[in-house]
Amino acid sequence: MTIKVAIVGVTGYTGQELVRLLLSHENVEIKSAVSHSHNGKLMNNVYPSFSKATDLICEDANLEKLAAEVDVIFLALPHGQAASKLNERVLAQCKVIDLGGDFRLKNVSDYEHWYKLKHASPQLLRNAVYGLPELNRKAIVTANLIANPGCYATCSILTLAPLVDSKLIDNHSIIIDAKSGVSGAGRSTDLGVHFNECNESFKAYQVATHRHTPEIEQALSVISEKPFALSFTPHLVPMNRGILVTAYASLLKEVTAEEVFDLYRSFYANEPFIRLFDAPQGDYKHPETRFVKGSNFCDISVSVDVRTKRIICIGAIDNLVKGAAGQAIQNMNLLFGLPETTGLGQAAIFPA
Amino acid sequence: MTIKVAIVGVTGYTGQELVRLLLSHENVEIKSAVSHSHNGKLMNNVYPSFSKATDLICEDANLEKLAAEVDVIFLALPHGQAASKLNERVLAQCKVIDLGGDFRLKNVSDYEHWYKLKHASPQLLRNAVYGLPELNRKAIVTANLIANPGCYATCSILTLAPLVDSKLIDNHSIIIDAKSGVSGAGRSTDLGVHFNECNESFKAYQVATHRHTPEIEQALSVISEKPFALSFTPHLVPMNRGILVTAYASLLKEVTAEEVFDLYRSFYANEPFIRLFDAPQGDYKHPETRFVKGSNFCDISVSVDVRTKRIICIGAIDNLVKGAAGQAIQNMNLLFGLPETTGLGQAAIFPA
Amino acid sequence: MTIKVAIVGVTGYTGQELVRLLLSHENVEIKSAVSHSHNGKLMNNVYPSFSKATDLICEDANLEKLAAEVDVIFLALPHGQAASKLNERVLAQCKVIDLGGDFRLKNVSDYEHWYKLKHASPQLLRNAVYGLPELNRKAIVTANLIANPGCYATCSILTLAPLVDSKLIDNHSIIIDAKSGVSGAGRSTDLGVHFNECNESFKAYQVATHRHTPEIEQALSVISEKPFALSFTPHLVPMNRGILVTAYASLLKEVTAEEVFDLYRSFYANEPFIRLFDAPQGDYKHPETRFVKGSNFCDISVSVDVRTKRIICIGAIDNLVKGAAGQAIQNMNLLFGLPETTGLGQAAIFPA
Amino acid sequence: MTIKVAIVGVTGYTGQELVRLLLSHENVEIKSAVSHSHNGKLMNNVYPSFSKATDLICEDANLEKLAAEVDVIFLALPHGQAASKLNERVLAQCKVIDLGGDFRLKNVSDYEHWYKLKHASPQLLRNAVYGLPELNRKAIVTANLIANPGCYATCSILTLAPLVDSKLIDNHSIIIDAKSGVSGAGRSTDLGVHFNECNESFKAYQVATHRHTPEIEQALSVISEKPFALSFTPHLVPMNRGILVTAYASLLKEVTAEEVFDLYRSFYANEPFIRLFDAPQGDYKHPETRFVKGSNFCDISVSVDVRTKRIICIGAIDNLVKGAAGQAIQNMNLLFGLPETTGLGQAAIFPA
Repeated sequence: MTIKVAIVGVTGYTGQELVRLLLSHENVEIKSAVSHSHNGKLMNNVYPSFSKATDLICEDANLEKLAAEVDVIFLALPHGQAASKLNERVLAQCKVIDLGGDFRLKNVSDYEHWYKLKHASPQLLRNAVYGLPELNRKAIVTANLIANPGCYATCSILTLAPLVDSKLIDNHSIIIDAKSGVSGAGRSTDLGVHFNECNESFKAYQVATHRHTPEIEQALSVISEKPFALSFTPHLVPMNRGILVTAYASLLKEVTAEEVFDLYRSFYANEPFIRLFDAPQGDYKHPETRFVKGSNFCDISVSVDVRTKRIICIGAIDNLVKGAAGQAIQNMNLLFGLPETTGLGQAAIFPA
Repeated sequence: MTIKVAIVGVTGYTGQELVRLLLSHENVEIKSAVSHSHNGKLMNNVYPSFSKATDLICEDANLEKLAAEVDVIFLALPHGQAASKLNERVLAQCKVIDLGGDFRLKNVSDYEHWYKLKHASPQLLRNAVYGLPELNRKAIVTANLIANPGCYATCSILTLAPLVDSKLIDNHSIIIDAKSGVSGAGRSTDLGVHFNECNESFKAYQVATHRHTPEIEQALSVISEKPFALSFTPHLVPMNRGILVTAYASLLKEVTAEEVFDLYRSFYANEPFIRLFDAPQGDYKHPETRFVKGSNFCDISVSVDVRTKRIICIGAIDNLVKGAAGQAIQNMNLLFGLPETTGLGQAAIFPA
Repeated sequence: MTIKVAIVGVTGYTGQELVRLLLSHENVEIKSAVSHSHNGKLMNNVYPSFSKATDLICEDANLEKLAAEVDVIFLALPHGQAASKLNERVLAQCKVIDLGGDFRLKNVSDYEHWYKLKHASPQLLRNAVYGLPELNRKAIVTANLIANPGCYATCSILTLAPLVDSKLIDNHSIIIDAKSGVSGAGRSTDLGVHFNECNESFKAYQVATHRHTPEIEQALSVISEKPFALSFTPHLVPMNRGILVTAYASLLKEVTAEEVFDLYRSFYANEPFIRLFDAPQGDYKHPETRFVKGSNFCDISVSVDVRTKRIICIGAIDNLVKGAAGQAIQNMNLLFGLPETTGLGQAAIFPA
Repeated sequence: MTIKVAIVGVTGYTGQELVRLLLSHENVEIKSAVSHSHNGKLMNNVYPSFSKATDLICEDANLEKLAAEVDVIFLALPHGQAASKLNERVLAQCKVIDLGGDFRLKNVSDYEHWYKLKHASPQLLRNAVYGLPELNRKAIVTANLIANPGCYATCSILTLAPLVDSKLIDNHSIIIDAKSGVSGAGRSTDLGVHFNECNESFKAYQVATHRHTPEIEQALSVISEKPFALSFTPHLVPMNRGILVTAYASLLKEVTAEEVFDLYRSFYANEPFIRLFDAPQGDYKHPETRFVKGSNFCDISVSVDVRTKRIICIGAIDNLVKGAAGQAIQNMNLLFGLPETTGLGQAAIFPA
């Protein structure tokens, strides 16, 4: 089987990561690499890392034209653009996987509150499926429009889902302290991503206002069947890739880490991309972002602090793979009936 | 006035930072640079950064000899060594500022539990004074033995003290998520500080077991007059210097960030080294470690999240200055009746 | 076809990179992962990046035992050990690809001079083949013992070979100023690779004494059929991976960069892993290490400085791939009659 | 004595470094902090590192107004602007130290060739003095207009001057391979200084076309009394600060490193900011940028390669201190009859 693919927004970090991963996907042909800003340019002139790997030329095509030519369109666009460009005619002709935030929140007013944008196509929200395979696999398989989760949201939800499902914790007590490498901010040039302004420094940003907060709350609400309000604080780490989430929650009853690991092992049984740090003989007790770099894995550890009756869960992903392009491909595999790991078998690259 | 100084453990990162700062302290003469491992070597052969700045030669002297020759001894030694070497005869002759952990915890059993060490001189604990000037200035002035606070503890306590003092928060709800540059781990060589093993990665370590936890609890207990049990999680940031603390607590009543800033302004009125990020017109809302690098400042911001009824406080210090050598000098200034800022007036160096 | 492989020294950076690359090589089965220091341990306990990717267990086997069981042994050992362990009986039973320096220099006295070691098996040197496929493909195909080139040597030789072959330059004028990421120094812990001792700094090392110097001279001598003495200076870059070489030579006659590129295009015609920065319309005029990270490519640019009558050639490789494990696999492919690019098709990963 | 100072272009990296250093200069009062882009803003809002260190407010004043109010104006402006703004009336009233490139090259056509700009005030060139104190101290003392040297030029010239003076080398053989941290590129935002585009990578740029080339040639020509044409190649290092220069030259006769060090010791006798790596007992044989970070020192080593009959000289400076702001203050001290080291006594900060 060959899936014909278009990538819209191909010259951003997420778009080019899709190219990198899809080039080694045996069932994919990239038909269109769409970039408004680099129209007419060779992809390998924009990213010389692709020299001898692809001869793709960036073009500036609209979605309706693409929909007639390909099986699936990946949208890797700034927030707001996907909602403006997408419509029912496109969705009637091909699958769409949106890597932006436009179709993740079911509630339009949540979107407009957190994104400070008017939603341009709210009527599409009802059929959009939140593309987190570990929680939502069944719905993904038959979807036309996939809302690929945010990077922080992916890591946070996967780290906490079994715990929320277990009802062992006080849902109101959840605090997520998250840390990301700089590539999460994208390729546009502003002072905040100037090398000298973030290298050798560490900071929090968007305290209590980050847009992945309602996305995490929505996903955990589905599990617990109750509304959620949690604290989420993102931080910037002076490194290229990787997200690490440290999540705290108060335990409602006494439990050991081993008992909690049992819950995680059961919840994530047979999940190909979840790895638990539950081996007492291992040299490493907790995830580190270097162990997932370049791979689609999500690593998770659990610690119980008996003094404070809290549980501390730590999760790590590569923000551009499991947090974006890799998960989008995982969704594509599900949409087209392929084994979920197709094209995503790479081990992490280290040291890198 | 000239204070004669000895630095024991001079070739560690903290020891050499003491040298750097004391070289520009107008009232100090470094009489002895003590290093067992580099005995006989020029300090500027061990650290060429000191070439043309000092001709100090490392020697291997014992504390009793030093006590007869200097006014104050700084101990910058691995945990356990200060307690083994120090005694009443030394303290009868000179002031001692210990930058390690041996005299910070009042309760010997706490020490032995968290440090996994038998305390070699518990009788000295009673007169040891915890050297955090912003909280403890009066006691410091007349002390003989100063326990210089830990780096994480300094940043955590200063970030939370006014809040704990205010009784606005539920003390049981405090969670401290802390991040440090690698120099906090010292100069000894092990795999964890190998460049390729920590560069371009981020991790948590010593989850729920870090030794600064009881130190923070002890200091906040003094303020609130109640026992404390809080969560403290340290993380390693791929950068040389700096600590950032993100602290969470549940509010007992509604309050605005501005009201909380008022409390901080009042609590830290006239403190020369505390800087509040309370200027609404500023470009930066939160501390970043780069803004304190090389300086003795502690920067603090406060945010109120009305959705979750939590307060999020962020603090930043340079772990080797306010978190170690700078604070030790601040304590020395107090001990000898000098203006507290003497020799500590440097602005942060940026970009660096 | 399935090639049975053993990797000796599997827990060093080069050894584990071989594992990473061979795991996605369709014609390879890793039969033995040999590590003296980690004997009995799961590879994915030593490197959690391999969790769910392999269940290899480190063992401590000798070469003779391995030779009976596998088709090819990769040796990734400290200098001197391969020469001690290898013998004719091993080579009679299987192919050996040595990634260390023991069999690169044809002249034993050169080896003993530059490596400060007595060579333990000089009799094997005669049949050892220098494994730089772009220059030596024919000899590699039939070899039993491959001396895989050094990382700096690979980059330097590939960058200069067409120029030396062209006779356009004064061979005596060649100066190679080389820069490497820290992983080139390996995983052993010493002060020089302590994070704080190399992060945010840049230095030269082993000035005029580096062991890759005679290796480069030997390879260029083969091309020019004259002895060579050139300057080679390595430098340490605060990054994980990558080598960049800046090579200078005096031109014997006037020539344009375009004419020189013609020579390179012709010399490297059909080479799958050589990429020339000769596209005048490209955004990037020169190689950067990020463009080759994780890939087996060697990128090269050429500039002519008419003012000084010099040519400046710049080359870049990933030191662990084309400079070590990737090239070793390229050699293995040649030894076993596979397409040279098998298992080496990955595009570079960026940003990483 | 109090020198009244204005800094024009105060919010660039060089401008703010001038502020940092001048704040601890006992004989200076900063009267005006001039910034067109940040007019009206507190300096410590632009750079929170200056909070509690200064209350300077950026203003948008012209040079004639400033000239009437201050003793010396530092110009830290993009190339071309100083020449446009400066005139004889300004210079008649106060001293001017220009940290840009407009007044460094004596020959207008050289300027216009290398800078691709028409020079707006060529008549001022005759009286401009090249502000490299170690070579030009006498002329600096009486100058009105100082052309503060470029960062690469400072390091290159100081590293090579004694050697060129010695006539031991073939001047035509000089090759300078230079490496700089990213802060040398300034604070403006473009893709080349985006964190992810330069972090974890290494590259050459402006090969054979960098504007510091003629500046180095001019300075060395003055010493050798002959025209010069040398190769200069700058590279970008993924770090904030620091320049390292590796310079190569062919020896005209046999000489030992120790004999060359003798020449350097004699040439730089009593120079407060030159440090030679000539101590055979030292742990470090060559400069590293970390040893000069934050200081005004220039560190130099010399190696003789008898095989290639070349000498390899290595120099290191902090590009923002000895390569810009520190050297400008050294020049100011000379202009006003102060000890040259006033305000420049800081040891390097490490690790930082």
